[in-house]
Amino acid sequence: MQHPDSYFMEQAIRLSAKGRPLSPPNPAVGCVIVRDGEIIASGFTQKAGGHHAEIEALTDAERRGVNIEGATVYVTLEPCSHYGRTPPCALALINHRVGRVVAAMKDPNPLVAGKGLAMLEAAGIPTACGVLEEEAWESNRGFFTRMTRGTPWVTLKVGASIDGRTALPNGESQWITGEAARQDVQRLRSESGAILTGIGTVLADDCRLNVRLPGRDPAEIRQPLRVVVDSSLRTPVTARVIGEDGLCLIVCAKADPKRKAELEMRGAEVIELPGSDGRVDLRALVSELGRREVNDLLAEGGATLNGALLDAGLVDEIVVYTAPILIGEGRGMWSVGPYKRLAEAERWAYRSVSRLGEDLCFDLRNQRKD
Amino acid sequence: MQHPDSYFMEQAIRLSAKGRPLSPPNPAVGCVIVRDGEIIASGFTQKAGGHHAEIEALTDAERRGVNIEGATVYVTLEPCSHYGRTPPCALALINHRVGRVVAAMKDPNPLVAGKGLAMLEAAGIPTACGVLEEEAWESNRGFFTRMTRGTPWVTLKVGASIDGRTALPNGESQWITGEAARQDVQRLRSESGAILTGIGTVLADDCRLNVRLPGRDPAEIRQPLRVVVDSSLRTPVTARVIGEDGLCLIVCAKADPKRKAELEMRGAEVIELPGSDGRVDLRALVSELGRREVNDLLAEGGATLNGALLDAGLVDEIVVYTAPILIGEGRGMWSVGPYKRLAEAERWAYRSVSRLGEDLCFDLRNQRKD
Repeated sequence: MQHPDSYFMEQAIRLSAKGRPLSPPNPAVGCVIVRDGEIIASGFTQKAGGHHAEIEALTDAERRGVNIEGATVYVTLEPCSHYGRTPPCALALINHRVGRVVAAMKDPNPLVAGKGLAMLEAAGIPTACGVLEEEAWESNRGFFTRMTRGTPWVTLKVGASIDGRTALPNGESQWITGEAARQDVQRLRSESGAILTGIGTVLADDCRLNVRLPGRDPAEIRQPLRVVVDSSLRTPVTARVIGEDGLCLIVCAKADPKRKAELEMRGAEVIELPGSDGRVDLRALVSELGRREVNDLLAEGGATLNGALLDAGLVDEIVVYTAPILIGEGRGMWSVGPYKRLAEAERWAYRSVSRLGEDLCFDLRNQRKD
Repeated sequence: MQHPDSYFMEQAIRLSAKGRPLSPPNPAVGCVIVRDGEIIASGFTQKAGGHHAEIEALTDAERRGVNIEGATVYVTLEPCSHYGRTPPCALALINHRVGRVVAAMKDPNPLVAGKGLAMLEAAGIPTACGVLEEEAWESNRGFFTRMTRGTPWVTLKVGASIDGRTALPNGESQWITGEAARQDVQRLRSESGAILTGIGTVLADDCRLNVRLPGRDPAEIRQPLRVVVDSSLRTPVTARVIGEDGLCLIVCAKADPKRKAELEMRGAEVIELPGSDGRVDLRALVSELGRREVNDLLAEGGATLNGALLDAGLVDEIVVYTAPILIGEGRGMWSVGPYKRLAEAERWAYRSVSRLGEDLCFDLRNQRKD
């Protein structure tokens, strides 16, 4: 049987997922308040500047008219102890005289880092920490990665045939994967702080790279930053990646002032991040996105950008949508190699596999230690 | 809750799997005898010429000293009614005065085809048919396919990287997949009547293509027929595919008499099956293997043979072992295409996916109707 603390923390983690599309750059936290083995109130992080999960749960309790004095609070991340966009949640819990606080993990944000739990303990409220810690880490891996490494969690997404082709030799790729896989890509985008692509993909597909959720008011959708790696600034001023809702950042090695001005006139931001090889310095770009508070970066480029990201060791996770279609000759998933020995090829690890309609979705993790 | 008939048939199907390595060209059948909700005796098909499953179960009952008069017999295939290599099983069941016979499906062998069940009914023994029929069909799909289509069930097996590469550009492929996947290939081979490969694979890898089961006496292993597609008869006389235990059939388009004699001296059989394009007629080859009572043909060639088999529409199932390794440039899984439109590419269907150590194994089925 599951320990009650694990059970309620699982509910809190499940709830936190609802906040993922809106919370960035804040972590998506879930909170449930429990009395006598029953959840009496709950909440999850609202959009940045809005309520944290604990305040949402306290507000929920008020709305329901339930008494939370002495109740146990389960929260997927240590309550904050500092005045940021909002007052400290630890203080609110103290003021409401809750009985016990269970956190899945400490907040790696150096402004908190144990101080929230210490504040509660100092007020005489017993605390516990480390319940479903791994699951809680996963639920906000982008935020934690940025806090500890300074750069976003980088997910490389590829849609391919069972034989590893992303397009026919002539470039046709619509549609290799099915509707369910495409919907899942929308979910990935909606949970990302930025989407990264290359100029090749922009020129070939004139992709929008925005979040489109059927039945959801577009005004309520947080659009991730669209980032185009475009060494010699070839992005057309009419590109849809600039025109749609949300911001667009074009990163070049050297900007022609006239082209730059034209693109900026259309609303794009253009920056130069030249590498030693005359192309964009991807490592510098990822750091720049970290500075811009991007927790999760979703790379949706072609084989060239994918290969460059992999070769630079910048990818944390690969998500592959595989359709049961046999393409044979066509475009590859990433330009890596050619290797002379198998030992030179990168070995990753399958983390999960799931079925999406007719397709399969794999999640692979890098084996390297940070 | 499961119906008792389904429950016991499931046990019989599970048992039948034990006979799969030895039974070919006979189907692998399982049989359990049940009284008062308990299995009192059981058996499965022995090697060709040996006992059928029902006789094994009757022998088991005798050995255990249990009385089977009036008991229910579950068998994964209709009991036979004809004198083949052994006397009819239906008669043996009648002689033992069993109470009821439940078969998963009728025997599509025209020599039986309902006559076994009719014989039992005529003797006053009630019968039922069609319990877990689909599962039973799957358990002997090769045999049934040969009975109805005249040709074996063709499984194409590929070991590849996550990006669809079977080898580095220089041909290195040992080892992309891990030990568990390689063991599973041995299981596939042990259940196949013949293994098919191409001259390219023979020349590159000098593969043995035999069954090697650790801890099993090699003398007890039924070695499948090894078949090499070798249009211009380039197989070296020293090739291991000829030298190892088991028979080797080399199929060419036109045999040079001297080369043919040399290979035959080493124990290989050489036949000519020329197609209109000067290469081996694969369709004729598959029919020839059907005539030779091969139920299950496992194709373990390279991209050229795989592509030719797929283009000829001869493949029923594809089994892909995928390792979480990124190879980039390298050899493909099958030479098909190039296509101009995605609609031209063959769409298959995922049937199952399983984890084998660090690797994944997919099973895909053809969508065509026979």
